[in-house]
Amino acid sequence: MINTTHTKTALSELGEFGLIRHLTENIVLINESTLKGVGDDCAVLDFKNKKIVVTTDLLTEGVHFNLMYVPLRHLGYKAVTVNLSDVYAMNATPRQITVSIAVSAKMSVEALDELYSGIYLACERYGVDLVGGDTTSSLTGLTISVTAIGEADEEDLVYRNGAKNTDLLCVTGDLGGAYMGLQLLERENEVFKVNPQMSPQFTGYDYILERQLKPEARKDMPGVFRELGVKPTSMIDISDGLSSEILHLCTESGVGCRLYEDRLLYDNQTKKMAAELNINPLVAALNGGEDYELLFTIPVADHGKILNHPDISVIGHITDKSEGVNLITAGAGQSIPLQAQGWNHLKD
Amino acid sequence: MINTTHTKTALSELGEFGLIRHLTENIVLINESTLKGVGDDCAVLDFKNKKIVVTTDLLTEGVHFNLMYVPLRHLGYKAVTVNLSDVYAMNATPRQITVSIAVSAKMSVEALDELYSGIYLACERYGVDLVGGDTTSSLTGLTISVTAIGEADEEDLVYRNGAKNTDLLCVTGDLGGAYMGLQLLERENEVFKVNPQMSPQFTGYDYILERQLKPEARKDMPGVFRELGVKPTSMIDISDGLSSEILHLCTESGVGCRLYEDRLLYDNQTKKMAAELNINPLVAALNGGEDYELLFTIPVADHGKILNHPDISVIGHITDKSEGVNLITAGAGQSIPLQAQGWNHLKD
Repeated sequence: MINTTHTKTALSELGEFGLIRHLTENIVLINESTLKGVGDDCAVLDFKNKKIVVTTDLLTEGVHFNLMYVPLRHLGYKAVTVNLSDVYAMNATPRQITVSIAVSAKMSVEALDELYSGIYLACERYGVDLVGGDTTSSLTGLTISVTAIGEADEEDLVYRNGAKNTDLLCVTGDLGGAYMGLQLLERENEVFKVNPQMSPQFTGYDYILERQLKPEARKDMPGVFRELGVKPTSMIDISDGLSSEILHLCTESGVGCRLYEDRLLYDNQTKKMAAELNINPLVAALNGGEDYELLFTIPVADHGKILNHPDISVIGHITDKSEGVNLITAGAGQSIPLQAQGWNHLKD
Repeated sequence: MINTTHTKTALSELGEFGLIRHLTENIVLINESTLKGVGDDCAVLDFKNKKIVVTTDLLTEGVHFNLMYVPLRHLGYKAVTVNLSDVYAMNATPRQITVSIAVSAKMSVEALDELYSGIYLACERYGVDLVGGDTTSSLTGLTISVTAIGEADEEDLVYRNGAKNTDLLCVTGDLGGAYMGLQLLERENEVFKVNPQMSPQFTGYDYILERQLKPEARKDMPGVFRELGVKPTSMIDISDGLSSEILHLCTESGVGCRLYEDRLLYDNQTKKMAAELNINPLVAALNGGEDYELLFTIPVADHGKILNHPDISVIGHITDKSEGVNLITAGAGQSIPLQAQGWNHLKD
């Protein structure tokens, strides 16, 4: 079937209040801490004796996503998971989110339903309640603002500023995949713009595409740390690229660091795509960003506890501040100062 | 001095992290419940045995504000106060906000400083801490997302759904001013577009301009209710216009209502501007919106307690649901069903 008829309902047919009702009427609250969700001036929450963590992200069309190749359902899912990632990076458990969107009046109700289907799927998988938000129009592109709220016992919270000299620097999973997925999507989008008849060539690259389009947050790690009997001394999630995150941890903790190039793990698809595009996967890991893995430090005495965990790699160690923050290259063992790249949205 | 030299620093000179540091480095946290503010993956809060309320708003250029006539400092102030208004509408006290902004790379650091000076002024006046946010770029206009977090004892919380038959319908302050201020600003902006040499004619309209550009939230009311020994049975803030808010209260509470036209209060400037523009001030009150006064219901037995309060007017009473939600006109005493207008952003 090529010419499927898609129903398109104008947002103005529902109006603002009708649209909010339409998007939120099937919410079932699952967390005990959610006393009142959508539908009043505020949501009402109760965390009893727990500490509360709050984080927020704003995503704008053309800067954080390109609707030419990002499906709306994936976008909704990703908008939630990247926020939850910040909660896990505190070693906390997310419980609620609020989601605000500004949309062009030309967008259809069905398109918004797609977006929200991804948002609700993420809520379900991560066990969080959508408790509020704002729905408004935009004269131009789509903007999504997500705020996540979580809880933790005070003694479990992990900040960025606790890394100590001799601590091991560790990371979960593999790196650089999301960036290589983005390169692939952008290459195929360019091909499509020149010749819309060409089908995109995505075969064999499902993993890196998923890393880019539908990333998962490390929901498992607070539990893993508990089981292993390890409490990180510092932690951050990798949203802007490893370089930038290591520099954050080191700056906040007042320490230096040695990162070993040969300890970084890449998925085979990341390596293959990098070779095809003549990009060093190290660059993807250091500066690419959006891997949403956790970067953390542990006391060297805890090395044995994490040694056999399949999802944790030791990639370096903390040093005195005077030694600086350096990458030790794989071959020659050269020491090169790390530089923060991160996203550079603010250039003209 | 006509040709004052204004320094303009490009955002790219600071970069994302430099900009965040620049905008947040002078924050002094004032609330006991704020354990950790800006600077980690999440803010960390502690409300002990209090309940927590959360609300969020998204403001977009061209829809919620026009930078042709809205000073950035006022815009920052208003973005915060309209959010706090939702917290007061729960009879709660705001404690923290997060602020995310998406800005064109062409905006200067000095312009953002103006915006944040308004945000910080509101934080100071309302006693809230700025604890987090996100700063990113937009390919088009300015977008501001604010989330406010507050606290209340459970027994003090007031929802939208508690209004009962025979309750009195009350409102704080005067209505329609913000809408008339907007009409004035738009009129003068049209004049300016035709002839940029003309000075805008704002003399004698300072109150309605301030209602539009720099509205205050009813910070005083939780304390007033406590002092008077009155707990509203339902409450909402007036952001979309009185009609729409009355309908929200009545729908959520499953009741009807009689609103008396002759009980509505207007400021003299509102009446004067309305006469000049040939607009009925009733229309400004019912459908204009942005007054950020509180609309609430109290048991009829509490009438005596509020009778002499200069900031509270009784404007109607709650009826059985079967009677509907009606305006009783001033002259003829006709009964006219209220209709929700509110903002209609979603029309093409």
